[in-house]
Amino acid sequence: MNNNLTLSQSLKHYQDRSNQHLAQWLEAQPFADQALVKTMKYGTLLGGKRARPFLTYITGQMLGAECADLDTPAAAVECIHAYSLIHDDLPAMDDDELRRGHPTCHIAFDEALAILAGDALQTLAFEILADGQLSNDGNTQRIAMIKELAQASGAAGMCIGQALDLEAEGKHVDLQQLEAIHKHKTGALIRCAVRLGALAAGQKGVAVLPQLNQFADAIGLAFQVQDDILDVTSDTETLGKPQGSDLALDKSTYPALLGLEGAQQKTQQLYQEALQALDAIPYNTTQLEVFARYIIERNN
Amino acid sequence: MNNNLTLSQSLKHYQDRSNQHLAQWLEAQPFADQALVKTMKYGTLLGGKRARPFLTYITGQMLGAECADLDTPAAAVECIHAYSLIHDDLPAMDDDELRRGHPTCHIAFDEALAILAGDALQTLAFEILADGQLSNDGNTQRIAMIKELAQASGAAGMCIGQALDLEAEGKHVDLQQLEAIHKHKTGALIRCAVRLGALAAGQKGVAVLPQLNQFADAIGLAFQVQDDILDVTSDTETLGKPQGSDLALDKSTYPALLGLEGAQQKTQQLYQEALQALDAIPYNTTQLEVFARYIIERNN
Repeated sequence: MNNNLTLSQSLKHYQDRSNQHLAQWLEAQPFADQALVKTMKYGTLLGGKRARPFLTYITGQMLGAECADLDTPAAAVECIHAYSLIHDDLPAMDDDELRRGHPTCHIAFDEALAILAGDALQTLAFEILADGQLSNDGNTQRIAMIKELAQASGAAGMCIGQALDLEAEGKHVDLQQLEAIHKHKTGALIRCAVRLGALAAGQKGVAVLPQLNQFADAIGLAFQVQDDILDVTSDTETLGKPQGSDLALDKSTYPALLGLEGAQQKTQQLYQEALQALDAIPYNTTQLEVFARYIIERNN
Repeated sequence: MNNNLTLSQSLKHYQDRSNQHLAQWLEAQPFADQALVKTMKYGTLLGGKRARPFLTYITGQMLGAECADLDTPAAAVECIHAYSLIHDDLPAMDDDELRRGHPTCHIAFDEALAILAGDALQTLAFEILADGQLSNDGNTQRIAMIKELAQASGAAGMCIGQALDLEAEGKHVDLQQLEAIHKHKTGALIRCAVRLGALAAGQKGVAVLPQLNQFADAIGLAFQVQDDILDVTSDTETLGKPQGSDLALDKSTYPALLGLEGAQQKTQQLYQEALQALDAIPYNTTQLEVFARYIIERNN
């Protein structure tokens, strides 16, 4: 990628690339004409910013990885994200009817298909890491990536985050507990997206994992604080999901605990932490810097 | 294992071994005291025959694999099986309240935790294959096993089987369609259990995969036909789940299509096919033979 591209051009470029690659995997399924695969496609390809694949691509490219090798972890991490959204939207979970401006999977299809499509998308994530394109030292890299994705998304990562979040509904949660929820629920997979990009770059990537962790943890939390802010300040059309849904579910949020201004200061502080982490990385971190700014300035 | 052990002794031996190994993985989760992990344990460890781990152990042992190496694929395949039961029992799926003589996960805990516990158990299956004990040629074997498990359990295997099964509810399904449903819904993971045992044994195992496929496909289908027969002929207490639930859901079954006697003949025919497949395997296939007979003679 040309470094002179604006962020929106760069986002669009990798969004398209990621969508094409995900579509190829989904089209290659042996029962591609069946309702299950249609539900998987609907839940994966219909809208979405592809923030996690973007992070995988730009981290890997910064460290010299081949773009074709980054398609593999980028697709895997997005399959996990897509499955988590489908399951989180279910009536027994957050009970959301709108996502990315469209009816959620269990509304557009039915609840059983939504559960199964989520399940099969998780499986596909691991199949992609085991079977997708990777040039060098394939199997060692694959295993490292599979461990990384499993730890970030399972009972030590995203799933425990969602469980803690559901448990906290209607309860008073302090700032420390709220951070623990988000560190797992959304932070773990964002960190994983960055780390998978680094792992695809081999030794160069492994050497900067500690700095990348700091960067990813800061933007991961900033992403969530900004989400909470937008749930208060934006509108349903811009968000593509119902505005005010956190309030409706009586969820603890950063604006609720810190006030709107306090939450906005928090995103600024996290942005500065992200920049400091990037200062310690001896490569061209421009794209990661620009993305960190986008995280806290986005309006949807 | 001593070949003079009876099947019930051998089943018990590997059931205990598998349970201990699964419990170790679950206890090692960082949030082991949380409701999510408790739900995972409940859904995995409370009862169950461990037929799939048993197949992995006896196939691998027949081919000379170390028992400690077989713990890894045996645990992974059982995590997938456990997650599928938890999700299949959900209200939006088969809506079952009793499993293995106990309330199903969403009854004992709640629906959100049941969904998340299933999700996290699937993740754990792949983490176990990526990180569990394996002596020789580790990463190549791991990747082969991860591909195998993903293909058997995702949109090309178990998940499409469950989707086809749900779609067939209340419709007339012919014998060919019924076989296609079961080939995917239960057959794929049983075949995978056998194949993972062979893969853990290295080249010796790879050489007999075609014969093992034939064996596994025959007993996989026989397992399902016998399940359908038991749903008609057994009672709730013996089954540990409600007798007559197929009928209640208006599901197509082998007894419904072939009559009870025809279904029983079908299990005999499949048993003979399984034995023929074993005849072509130049190792001591006694345990697999005995297990095939157990499949069609079991009463729960």
